[in-house]
Amino acid sequence: MEYCFGVDIGGTTVKIGLFRTDGELIDKWEIKTRTENEGEAILPDVAKALKNKMSEKGIVPSQVSGIGIGIPAPVDEKGIVQNTANLGWGYKEVSREMEELTGMKVAAGNDANVAALGEMWLGAGKGHKNLIMVTLGTGVGGGVIVNGQPLTGSHGAGGEIGHLCVNYNETEQCGCGKRGCLEQYASATGIARLAKKRLAKDGTESVLRGVEKVDAKAVFDALKEGDKLSEEIVEEFGAYLGHAMANLAVVTDPSVIVIGGGVSKAGDILLGYIEKYFKEMVFFANEETKFVLAELGNDAGICGAAKLIL
Amino acid sequence: MEYCFGVDIGGTTVKIGLFRTDGELIDKWEIKTRTENEGEAILPDVAKALKNKMSEKGIVPSQVSGIGIGIPAPVDEKGIVQNTANLGWGYKEVSREMEELTGMKVAAGNDANVAALGEMWLGAGKGHKNLIMVTLGTGVGGGVIVNGQPLTGSHGAGGEIGHLCVNYNETEQCGCGKRGCLEQYASATGIARLAKKRLAKDGTESVLRGVEKVDAKAVFDALKEGDKLSEEIVEEFGAYLGHAMANLAVVTDPSVIVIGGGVSKAGDILLGYIEKYFKEMVFFANEETKFVLAELGNDAGICGAAKLIL
Repeated sequence: MEYCFGVDIGGTTVKIGLFRTDGELIDKWEIKTRTENEGEAILPDVAKALKNKMSEKGIVPSQVSGIGIGIPAPVDEKGIVQNTANLGWGYKEVSREMEELTGMKVAAGNDANVAALGEMWLGAGKGHKNLIMVTLGTGVGGGVIVNGQPLTGSHGAGGEIGHLCVNYNETEQCGCGKRGCLEQYASATGIARLAKKRLAKDGTESVLRGVEKVDAKAVFDALKEGDKLSEEIVEEFGAYLGHAMANLAVVTDPSVIVIGGGVSKAGDILLGYIEKYFKEMVFFANEETKFVLAELGNDAGICGAAKLIL
Repeated sequence: MEYCFGVDIGGTTVKIGLFRTDGELIDKWEIKTRTENEGEAILPDVAKALKNKMSEKGIVPSQVSGIGIGIPAPVDEKGIVQNTANLGWGYKEVSREMEELTGMKVAAGNDANVAALGEMWLGAGKGHKNLIMVTLGTGVGGGVIVNGQPLTGSHGAGGEIGHLCVNYNETEQCGCGKRGCLEQYASATGIARLAKKRLAKDGTESVLRGVEKVDAKAVFDALKEGDKLSEEIVEEFGAYLGHAMANLAVVTDPSVIVIGGGVSKAGDILLGYIEKYFKEMVFFANEETKFVLAELGNDAGICGAAKLIL
């Protein structure tokens, strides 16, 4: 087999990649995600897009190992989802349906777990078999790879790192209904929240007071300019995230922790603040665990999806 | 293949079980663990014991699937340990050495992970593929099973549940050098510590004040007699353990959590106090996770070791 497809289904677009089985990305493109009518068109649209691409490239089914699919929902090991927040799907046997539509082998997984697999295969986690990927975006997503495989769990809900409790004293509620979730401190939204609370606490001078929109980017920009108050905020962020990673490491014993998502665009400066607090709390067996920035950006999903089928 | 061996190496004795491959335990016995001279006699002693048993039963090597070994130390996927606290071994290629001594296939794993595997195969976790086992003894040990396999991790140190940080404000140090580890609250030693602190706090009446040795058993005995202060202690224990399990569940998504070790002899009454706090904090996807008491007692190690090789 020479080829495989990686499909990353999002609420707005479906990203698709055609790969050689050695990992070379030959082509990638996007189609619209049509979520109306319970998302009934999504899989047929993808199937059609794959068939057209195969015609265009002169590829026949016997040359294709299969199709991997990442989905923004818990997915069990049979490729079944119970519900989705953004696709319109309720219960759906994704792998089976896609196999019927294409006649090819299909594997499906949760999008965050799949992105972690992508970074392991072709990105910042290359050469590692045990890794954690944390995606710091609007929320905090995560994927745990154990011995080369995504930790799926009994409901396909493994690796929900954003909902680790890191503050037993929190009074504000997380979107999930709990209090003190990592997501409340380490997501872009969470960092903005920490910043607003710190600014309101006292009158300490800060570049941030002249900024129209105090968001995560503004905080890291100010930090790079040497703003002391921004550094306090980033220290707080680093403490929550670093301690959470130390707790995760004691259970999953990763050799590398990959930090991705929009917040990670702040760059290497980010890693120091996380590692400092990680090392403060980590179990001795995990002291050598390394932190690295994700490398694949938006391609992590299609890369990991393709790896799912190999 | 009809038979397999499960070997559970401890600091004082080695427990050995002869199993049919369908899980029936045919025979079990113990030999002394000779730890002198860097434990050089341990593996040869075990090999000899297995050979003698095979002669006794008229079993030939071609009838034996292999030998599984549980070891009280981190063990990597190749069956190598770097160091042991109680056996005298430093770096040791356990699987390779044992294969050379016996001519049979060998697999080795960490004893806590192996015990979890045993409960999955023949005990309280039967029928489950994703489970956590927590062993509440002098310390808190643990094993995490993911999709039927122990979570070993990159250094063989996966599943060190006892060293999850559950209290960021703790001032006393855990044996590992960190502060606030689950082991400081949920082990037999930890429960005794909670009891002593509670008794010292004020003059509240309690059955425990008349007890010579305030240990975990005394606390649970008093609880069963309706002692209010003991209930406060057990509530505190339950909160630390239940919250820790909720945090673990959000990452590993188990269908069942098995509670074992000496403390679990308190019986079913224990589970209610853990579950109460688990449910208070658990992520919605893991609400149905069940708590059960371990069933295999000291045989969990030999059972899980045997399963390692199958």
